[in-house]
Formats: sequence, C-alpha cells, structure tokens
Amino acid sequence: THESQSCSASALSVDTESLQRQIDELSTFSDTPAPSVTRILYSEKDVLARRYIKNLMGLAGLSIREDAVGNIFGRWNGNDPEIPPVATGSHVDAIPYSGKYDGVVGVLGAIEAVNVLRRSGFKPKRSLEVILFTSEEPTRFGISCLGSRLLAGSEPLADALRRTVDGHNVSFFDAARSAGYAQDRDDLSSVFLKKGSYSAFLELHIEQGPLLEEEGTSIGIVTAIAAPASIKVDFEGNGGHAGAVLMPYRNDAGLAAAELALAVEEHVLQSGSIDTVGTVGILDLHPGAINSIPSKAHIEIDTRDIDEKRRNSVIEKIHHSAITIAKARKVKLSEFRIVNQDPPALSDESIIKAMEDASEELNLTRKWMISRAYHDSLFMARVSPMGMIFIPCYKGYSHKPEEYASIENIADGVKVLALTMAKLSLK
Amino acid sequence: THESQSCSASALSVDTESLQRQIDELSTFSDTPAPSVTRILYSEKDVLARRYIKNLMGLAGLSIREDAVGNIFGRWNGNDPEIPPVATGSHVDAIPYSGKYDGVVGVLGAIEAVNVLRRSGFKPKRSLEVILFTSEEPTRFGISCLGSRLLAGSEPLADALRRTVDGHNVSFFDAARSAGYAQDRDDLSSVFLKKGSYSAFLELHIEQGPLLEEEGTSIGIVTAIAAPASIKVDFEGNGGHAGAVLMPYRNDAGLAAAELALAVEEHVLQSGSIDTVGTVGILDLHPGAINSIPSKAHIEIDTRDIDEKRRNSVIEKIHHSAITIAKARKVKLSEFRIVNQDPPALSDESIIKAMEDASEELNLTRKWMISRAYHDSLFMARVSPMGMIFIPCYKGYSHKPEEYASIENIADGVKVLALTMAKLSLK
Ligand SMILES: [Mn+2]
Ligand SMILES: [Mn+2]
Ligand SMILES: [Mn+2]
Ligand SMILES: [Mn+2]
Repeated sequence: THESQSCSASALSVDTESLQRQIDELSTFSDTPAPSVTRILYSEKDVLARRYIKNLMGLAGLSIREDAVGNIFGRWNGNDPEIPPVATGSHVDAIPYSGKYDGVVGVLGAIEAVNVLRRSGFKPKRSLEVILFTSEEPTRFGISCLGSRLLAGSEPLADALRRTVDGHNVSFFDAARSAGYAQDRDDLSSVFLKKGSYSAFLELHIEQGPLLEEEGTSIGIVTAIAAPASIKVDFEGNGGHAGAVLMPYRNDAGLAAAELALAVEEHVLQSGSIDTVGTVGILDLHPGAINSIPSKAHIEIDTRDIDEKRRNSVIEKIHHSAITIAKARKVKLSEFRIVNQDPPALSDESIIKAMEDASEELNLTRKWMISRAYHDSLFMARVSPMGMIFIPCYKGYSHKPEEYASIENIADGVKVLALTMAKLSLK
Repeated sequence: THESQSCSASALSVDTESLQRQIDELSTFSDTPAPSVTRILYSEKDVLARRYIKNLMGLAGLSIREDAVGNIFGRWNGNDPEIPPVATGSHVDAIPYSGKYDGVVGVLGAIEAVNVLRRSGFKPKRSLEVILFTSEEPTRFGISCLGSRLLAGSEPLADALRRTVDGHNVSFFDAARSAGYAQDRDDLSSVFLKKGSYSAFLELHIEQGPLLEEEGTSIGIVTAIAAPASIKVDFEGNGGHAGAVLMPYRNDAGLAAAELALAVEEHVLQSGSIDTVGTVGILDLHPGAINSIPSKAHIEIDTRDIDEKRRNSVIEKIHHSAITIAKARKVKLSEFRIVNQDPPALSDESIIKAMEDASEELNLTRKWMISRAYHDSLFMARVSPMGMIFIPCYKGYSHKPEEYASIENIADGVKVLALTMAKLSLK
C-alpha cells in the first residue's frame, strides 16, 4: 500500500530540543559524578541506559531484538522487508571519567534520524535498522568492540570469552547474565551475522579530533579507519623493602615499566609519520606501597596507524625493547601479549558517494578524512559495506568530561545520516 | 617485699613453640590470603590483631593502657614504680601483600621477653613496659610511624591529622573512632610523652637486609637509623583519546611520571654512596584506561640515607627534575610535597653497651650495624635514649610474603632483649 519514495533534503527537520534532552538524560546513568560519565558494560547504569534506549526505539516505532551479548537492534520494516536492510548505530558505554557524546551521538542520533524520516513522510524500501553495540570500549574485559567483533563472526573471541574475567574475577558470562543476557548457554555463535546481512552500515560519531572545528567544516566523510592494536605487558622482580634493599641488589619491575612506557613513545615518534600513535594508559604497580620496591608491574599499550605495516613494525620494536629492558634490569618479562592487532578498514565507494550527495543537498560543508579512533564500523566493515559520518567537537576533546559537540552540529550530522539512509534504502 | 635482683643469662628460656604459634595466629588477621599479610590501620583485622595482643599482655600480667590513637602500653610494675620505666615495642600493622615478621617479632617478642624474665624469677626495679605502636606503616594515611611521631610530641602531625583522609575519603578521626579510639575529641595532645618518660627504649626487629644471615651472625646491634623522607608528586595534562590525539599535540602526565621515576633512580645512583636509596612504590594514572592518554599521574617517592645532607641534596635534584620534566612535556606540576624529611637517629651509648654485654653473656655472635629501614625507634629517640636489636632474616626479604625469620634466631633476639631490659631496669 505505502510506496517507497525518495526523500527531499528540505523536508528534514531535527527535534534538537528532544535530542539534547536525551543526551543529557542518558549522561546521568553514570558511576561518577557529572560532568564526567562512567558507564561500564553490564553494570547497573549500563542496564538502565539500555532500558532508556529501548524505550526510545519503541517510541520511534522500531521493533526490537536483542542478541545473546546485548547488541540491540531496532528495525523499521521497509516495503521490501526480504532484502538486506540499511543499518546504523554506535555504542553507549563510556570509559571511566569520560564525556557524554562519544558513541551516544550515533545511537540517539540514529533513533532521531528515523524520527526525522518518518516526519518527512519517507517510506523505506529496504528496512532501516538502528543498532546499539555492546561494549565498544575495552574497560571491563579488556576487549574493544566486543559486540561488533562478534557480529562480524569472530570465533576466536567467542571462544576466549568462555575464559574471560574482569578485574574482580567476575566471568564474562556471569556478568552478561546479571544484565539479562546469555541466559541459555555459553555458545555465542547465534550472535554472528552472515556476510551480506546488511546492504550498508553507517555510523555517526563525533570526530574526536580538532580538524573539523578548526576549519569550520560541518561534516567529515570518513574514507578509512586506522588500524588499532593493544598489548598487555607484565614485568616481575623481587620487590623488597624500600629502605633495606640497596640499589645494586634491586630489580625494580616498576622502573622497567617506566622505561617501556618511554620506549613506546620513542618508537612511535621514530615511525616517520604523524599518523602513528602509541599510548600507555594503564600502569599498575604491585604491591603499590610507598615503602615497597615494585615486585610486579602491569602496563597496557595502545598503538594505531593508518598504515598496518608501519604499526606492526612499531609493535615489533616495542617487543624488542621489553626484552632488552627486562634483561638489563634483571626482571622477568612474564607476559607480552598482543590482545588485538586489527587491520584498517576502508569505507565503501558507493556509500561515500551517498554521504557526499546528502551533504551537498543539505548545503553542508564537508571534507574527506581518516578516523584515527576505531569504531564498531571497523568490524562491521568485515560483513557489510561501511561508511562513517563525523561531526565537529570542541577542541577535538574526547574520553574526558570536557568532551562537547553543539546540538546544531549534531543536528547536521543527523540530517546527513537520515538522508544517506534514505538514499541507500532505495538502492 | 620483693627485692629487685640481677638476672643470669643461663636462667633465660624462651617458649619457642608458643611464640611461633602466636606469630602464625597473628598472621591470619589479614585482608589478603596467606602467605601474604595485609593489615591496615583501624581495619577490622587490625582491631582483631590489637585484641589478640591485649589478651597476651593480660596473660603476661601486664596492666594495659591505650591512648587516643591506639598506641597500647602493657606495664610490669617494678619495685620502684615512680622512676622512668624501660620500654620496648614495635608495630603489628602490615603493608599490602607483605609478611608476618616485620614489627610482629618486636611486639610478640617483647611480651615473651616479659614471660622469660618472670619465669627466671627476675624482679624489675624500674617498671618494664611493652608498647604496640599505631601505624608504623604509612599505608592508610600516608604517614609513617604515626603513633611514635605523636608520642614524640609532633604538634604539626596532631594538627595535620584533623584534615587527613584516606584514599576513600574517610577522615583519620572517623577511622580512629570506628576502631574505638579518639572517642572524646580531636585533641591529640594527651598522646604526647614528656621527654624522660622512659629511661630507655628498645626495639627488637628483623634486619630486613641480608648481612646477618650471610655472615651467620646472630645479633645486630643498631648504632644508627637512616634518615627517611617521602614525597608526593602530581602531574596534570590534557588527556584525550589515545587514537585521535596525534603525538605532537599531547601532554601525557603518565610519561612525565615515568621520566621522574627514572630520574629518582639516576639521582640516587649518582649520590656517590651505596647508602643512598630511592624508590617509586606508587604510580597511579588517571583515568587509567588503555585508550585514554593519562591526564593525571600521581607518584610517591621514598628516599633515605644515613647522611641527612646527602639525602636532602637528592630531594633537591628530584624536585629540579620534576620541574624540568613538567616544562619539557608541557604538563602541570600540580603538587610536589615533601611529606616527611626526618633526621637520622643515633643509639644511646649506654644502651649499646647493655646490648653488647647481654649478647656476650648469652654467647651470641653480634655485629654493629646501621638500620636502613626506619622504625618507631627513630621517633622514640626524640624523647628517650634508644637502642635496637636486629635478628637475621631469610635473604633480607621484607615487605613481601617470602619474609621469614627462624624461631631459633627470634628466640636469641628475645633473650638479648630480656637480658638488656633486665640490666637497664636495675640502673
Ligand atoms: Mn570511546
Ligand atoms: Mn566511540
Ligand atoms: Mn615495614
Ligand atoms: Mn617494621
């Protein structure tokens, strides 16, 4: 009865007041005080945030499905519900003491894009689907993009999760069950998507870099996502009393970790490219007392590049440094584990074209760019053609309470998302 | 009626079985599993340990007094109870994941020394007093030798404690009250001892260094205690996303801390003396996520020397490095606080003589030595003539679960302590 029909840019209007209110309300589900946001996978606040999103999906007329790890799908059935839908989405988990826009803009913005299209009178041919991904951030189990990796069919991850525990020794499955997921069994193969399940996947996200704001450009059209890797390292020494053990008799695991942290920086700076980055965000000393020589040190290293080979060469140099430092300091390198070492992802040409056309029709300035942060799109690209839309954010700040994007910029991003989905839905 | 009388070395016998059992039982009051011991000031386990000690004091016929911060005194009244007593004691708090002998040997050993003297038929002239000191370790409030510093009359500490909180924002006084102390008021002047309150103070302690064991010597006679200092340092940068912020735009507080930790080692090694030591036992990063550049780093530095001037020069160099590193890395040095900077302490000549004579009469090998670890004796030396007795411990290990002293070596130390107390009691 309802014919699918193309969509005119001028018919699109975003309810900025509601959208801003939703962003603010969602930010209150946090384990740390405002303006910081901390929302950890399967925590009470995460469960409340999920309920909040499902309610909004329902109000937008989407039919809801959740999989065994808590990826949430809200579908608007198209006139041709048998062909692969167009999907979009992002995450709502937040690392400790971060902000309220990372991920959130791509979930609440996607639901609002559906509302925008409905208000414009648009009828999709392919179904449209909004996805909330489980645990884009690695906070709780040390695994980034947990939900999208599984959707992309990662058997090794499904297997590893059977033995995965958090920092308090709570198993992944116990945590998932406490949030109402994975009730039946430990088999996660039901989560895997077949290649071709979607005709396109889109993600709207704040830039997390300063370029769009500096240049006054409204929209970033992402052509590629940098290749991320993460590494866990443990050093072990004899420890001992900080007063009684003289310097020549020490093998201080903490100083080995300090040297390795500085070596990471050195190797990254020597890569020859501005695009190589490396970070030590976690450094834990044991026993962690002022009058004890550290007997154990644990560090976690994040390194990324748009060039996978160059990044891998940095990882090799870091490994070599870890071995050399351990030898020189007579500490044991008890672990050097590459947790993930993912290739980069390229956006799909025809999706880039659709995002370009949408921005053009909406009279929005735009630029092609690289995503240096990874996103669930990196993994969705394994099973679907992919594209990402960036919007400006204040000073490029992210992962801290000062993270901010104006509702005007968000609304522009929502319109580009809505119009791009409409175009792709009719293909 | 009872005449005081000198004491013969051959009459002294230690109940090694009971003493070993007490050491083992006390070690079970721990917040971490055996063989590690963790006993934090005013925690439930600390309160249970205190109750255990008071019970043993009672069984040894001592009359018990506790002061407002929980220093515990058990007195054996001498024939001349009006003149200053001879005191001995140590601590039973234990840093996280440490062992069961540090401090404990000097408390349980002191009570056993009383039992030894009673069994030998000895009657003291000066009263004998066993002291359990509150919080020798700085774990909870960052203040080492809290109890003995107050006994030594530290007004600045009594004042600072009014504003002191632990890592969970619990105030010192709330914590003390929860353990049954400081009930009436926040005034701690009642804790201060007048100079001359004791005619002598003795402490029995494991060496926490390898020398006695290596040489096969039974008893260390401490002639001086090294001068300890501790420093808290905070760096602050902008933090940000580990993927999105390119290296030239970073000011990483964690890398500043790593550099400072290595600078501490460098300055200590350059002091020109084997006696200079420096340690970074605490290094905390904020927010502490693998994909966040550290925006804050907190480190705590311990440095000691038997030469106060040389140690102070190391502190100055560390301060200079902190400033230089902060400037070069464009981070803020938001705190550089010298928490304590204590002078060394010398043992009293006549107490050294008494310890010598006691070892001689007991046919025990002995050597003069420096204490590189600090002890409550460092502060008791401010209000009383002081001496310390060391016993060998396995490989010099301390502040870790492998800490060990044989019951035979402990018993020798207890006999030297008992005989020295007997001699000093009659002076
Ligand atoms: Mn993020
Ligand atoms: Mn994100
Ligand atoms: Mn200690
Ligand atoms: Mn001690």
